[in-house]
Amino acid sequence: MADKPPRRPRAETPKGFRDYFGAEVTERKAMLDRIAGVYHRYGFDPLETSAVETVEALGKFLPDVDRPNEGVFAWQDEDADWLALRYDLTAPLARVAAQYRNDLPSPYRRYAMGPVWRNEKPGPGRFRQFYQCDADTVGSASVAADAEICAMLADTLEEVGIPRGDYVVKVNNRKVLNGVMEVAGLAGDDKETERGIVLRAIDKIDRLGPDGVRALLGEGRKDESGDFTKGAGLSAEQAEVVMGFTTAKREAGAATVARLRELVGGSSIGVEGVDELEAIAALLEAQGYGPDRIVLDPGVVRGLGYYTGPVYEAELTFQITDEKGRPRNFGSVAGGGRYDGLVKRFTGQDVPATGVSIGVDRLLAALRAKGRIETEAAGPLVVTVMDRDRMADYMAMVGELRSAGIRAEVYLGNPKNFGNQLKYADKRQSPIAVIQGGNEAEKGTVILKDLILGAKIAESATLEEWKDRPAQVEVPRGDLVVAVRKMLGQ
Amino acid sequence: MADKPPRRPRAETPKGFRDYFGAEVTERKAMLDRIAGVYHRYGFDPLETSAVETVEALGKFLPDVDRPNEGVFAWQDEDADWLALRYDLTAPLARVAAQYRNDLPSPYRRYAMGPVWRNEKPGPGRFRQFYQCDADTVGSASVAADAEICAMLADTLEEVGIPRGDYVVKVNNRKVLNGVMEVAGLAGDDKETERGIVLRAIDKIDRLGPDGVRALLGEGRKDESGDFTKGAGLSAEQAEVVMGFTTAKREAGAATVARLRELVGGSSIGVEGVDELEAIAALLEAQGYGPDRIVLDPGVVRGLGYYTGPVYEAELTFQITDEKGRPRNFGSVAGGGRYDGLVKRFTGQDVPATGVSIGVDRLLAALRAKGRIETEAAGPLVVTVMDRDRMADYMAMVGELRSAGIRAEVYLGNPKNFGNQLKYADKRQSPIAVIQGGNEAEKGTVILKDLILGAKIAESATLEEWKDRPAQVEVPRGDLVVAVRKMLGQ
Repeated sequence: MADKPPRRPRAETPKGFRDYFGAEVTERKAMLDRIAGVYHRYGFDPLETSAVETVEALGKFLPDVDRPNEGVFAWQDEDADWLALRYDLTAPLARVAAQYRNDLPSPYRRYAMGPVWRNEKPGPGRFRQFYQCDADTVGSASVAADAEICAMLADTLEEVGIPRGDYVVKVNNRKVLNGVMEVAGLAGDDKETERGIVLRAIDKIDRLGPDGVRALLGEGRKDESGDFTKGAGLSAEQAEVVMGFTTAKREAGAATVARLRELVGGSSIGVEGVDELEAIAALLEAQGYGPDRIVLDPGVVRGLGYYTGPVYEAELTFQITDEKGRPRNFGSVAGGGRYDGLVKRFTGQDVPATGVSIGVDRLLAALRAKGRIETEAAGPLVVTVMDRDRMADYMAMVGELRSAGIRAEVYLGNPKNFGNQLKYADKRQSPIAVIQGGNEAEKGTVILKDLILGAKIAESATLEEWKDRPAQVEVPRGDLVVAVRKMLGQ
Repeated sequence: MADKPPRRPRAETPKGFRDYFGAEVTERKAMLDRIAGVYHRYGFDPLETSAVETVEALGKFLPDVDRPNEGVFAWQDEDADWLALRYDLTAPLARVAAQYRNDLPSPYRRYAMGPVWRNEKPGPGRFRQFYQCDADTVGSASVAADAEICAMLADTLEEVGIPRGDYVVKVNNRKVLNGVMEVAGLAGDDKETERGIVLRAIDKIDRLGPDGVRALLGEGRKDESGDFTKGAGLSAEQAEVVMGFTTAKREAGAATVARLRELVGGSSIGVEGVDELEAIAALLEAQGYGPDRIVLDPGVVRGLGYYTGPVYEAELTFQITDEKGRPRNFGSVAGGGRYDGLVKRFTGQDVPATGVSIGVDRLLAALRAKGRIETEAAGPLVVTVMDRDRMADYMAMVGELRSAGIRAEVYLGNPKNFGNQLKYADKRQSPIAVIQGGNEAEKGTVILKDLILGAKIAESATLEEWKDRPAQVEVPRGDLVVAVRKMLGQ
């Protein structure tokens, strides 16, 4: 009996992961560089932690606290430690702030960029590895730190190509919400579960609408699939107090503040929150960040449980067309807030902190949807191989071109079929093919074929403008670099 | 009985992982950008695969095949797939080349940079996450592809700051070694284990010396710890044939080629290997890459089992001082070769490929050891807070400075103690502290404190040159940006 050959491995990315090619990589890199430039100018220093952390250090702070034990890729190390891939850049920062607390400047202002991993069900456009780009100030209790992050977020969006008017940074304060909950009778340690349900319900208002939220504030809600989500069990009156909070936004920031002051009534934490919001608004206004860029919006609560004060979110306000051709708002591309408890987990000491995370892949998608990415699609010049024994000559040509800073390569596939070489040049979006057969070699010339012009002529052969421009020139070998520069319009 | 408070998590990186701060991050980024610039000019396109692959797709190609089941961080996914962190950038490339074989240009020339993970015992300077920066040509059987990679490697090293003479790229060919083994009677499928032992023995010649290698070619070798490594079981005559190969390097490439031709005798694979080496040498010489940059060196075999033809390695030739104060050669910072079987694993079809991997962290360490990294240590200007009620004024100052492209921030810690603010500015390596107390505010001025000059004066207060330069100036508030620029020497 003959052995069956071993099954070949599948050439597939794991489910929920993807590869990024060419311009996808350089466009993201260009965006990260621009963001880093703004963060740097604001005084933040880079930090790069490793992808792997102990499960213990990461803690369980994923947004979807309905499933607290899921969401991370984790495994047990040989020496019994549980390790995991980081799910965000905030948890590693809290670990770093605690680990190096005696060496770091205080406040510690850092930025970080890189992939994070979520062990979630993948969906369309929803991947299990994606980029974040964060900036945080650790060790400052001042609302000036929060205001600064909001201003920086606005500056950053404009820097990467979102013009003013196409985005808005919304600011709110968890303390106000806590005050409202106090008024609604949801204070006290025994009500933590209810407060969590309220928080997540409000966070879903865009998706569920006011009635959906009301249902979650009350007995609960059955979704389209028939699944039932238990509600917070609030009475109708209690629910209305909370709902009033979500609709407290007014045209002017001062009016919003006034409305919130009514809602929090005598709750001291609520009053503190409103005062902070007012202070942030004043600082931003003094710097000229008006409501065309940053607004107070009590509808923003952020899903994460760990926020303790100001929260903020950047939303793109333009519409895009979804997969089904319907217009929809692009929505949130960044968010953050104040989290005064994350470092305390490690040290036992209060360390106030605030920061923002930009969802880089979403932001890139938005810019692409708006056609605002300038794709640098210039492929390399391709020097074709007419005579494989003269490979050294062809390599000398690309050597000269590269030394002159021109992207170039010799065709390295099988040179037998010349058509394949031109097809290759085409696929690489090569601007020029360089050709030197035996005749040209003897004469001491090379032929430059203008592939961009050639493609244009092929598209619409009648246009006058190309009449006088040859799609192909023969030049002395010694003029290669000069002639290429001329054809490239350099 | 009172509950014990829950144990606080340890604020620690997992064993073998580390954090990178400030200049460590920007220096590496600057190096990666430079390398990418060279790769791009050579016509390579970027590819970014995810950190996670299926274990099946990765395969087992770690250098240390003595322990084939170790070396990767792996875990079982919910749907029973085994996933793992990539241990290099070549295995994911092979998967991509197979997965997208109908869409990618052929040859496919890609570069990739990013962290890889090895589940190995960490040691001093040896981490479980480190950066690689690879370039590969997939789908070219031509030795011109190998020659090009060697030339590019030399260019890259010079581009990142290793001057000519401080490095050498060594080239060899596995086929030559296979020919030598044929001559030594080690051909045939039943001798694969022996050939593997021979390969790894030669790869260790720098560490073990000729006698150590001879022992491994014969019965085996006991190391200092008393552990015994089984040898290939070659006779003394067979071993001498192999040892002759490791010492075949001659002053001139042509002489090395001649010596190798003798050694491979009538082995057709061996002759093929020597012919390829000769062709590579000729191509490189025609482009002016002489033995001051690239040499033939039969001593280089590379430990990886999957190489099938040319192999190459970049070595830094200068000495550094090790932890114990002894001078030692820095050694290898990059390596690669031709691997014609990796894509075939997936597709069953032959896909020739060749490429190089630069160990970015080692290369950075080398440049630091030689003092060849220009550290950009400029911290932000720090605007101090003399009066916390005028935070908006201070933020307006940094706003102006940032708009002028000057890195600046307001002190966001507790402003009570002014000394702490200056200590903070010092720790941040801030060039200038901006001060505006009540008096200055009334007069409409600000004070600029030159912290760099201040530090220099503190170091050596007598120097004449600083006599006329004040370490502190008071300027009109409206002149802030101009005066800062002047103090910064811009």
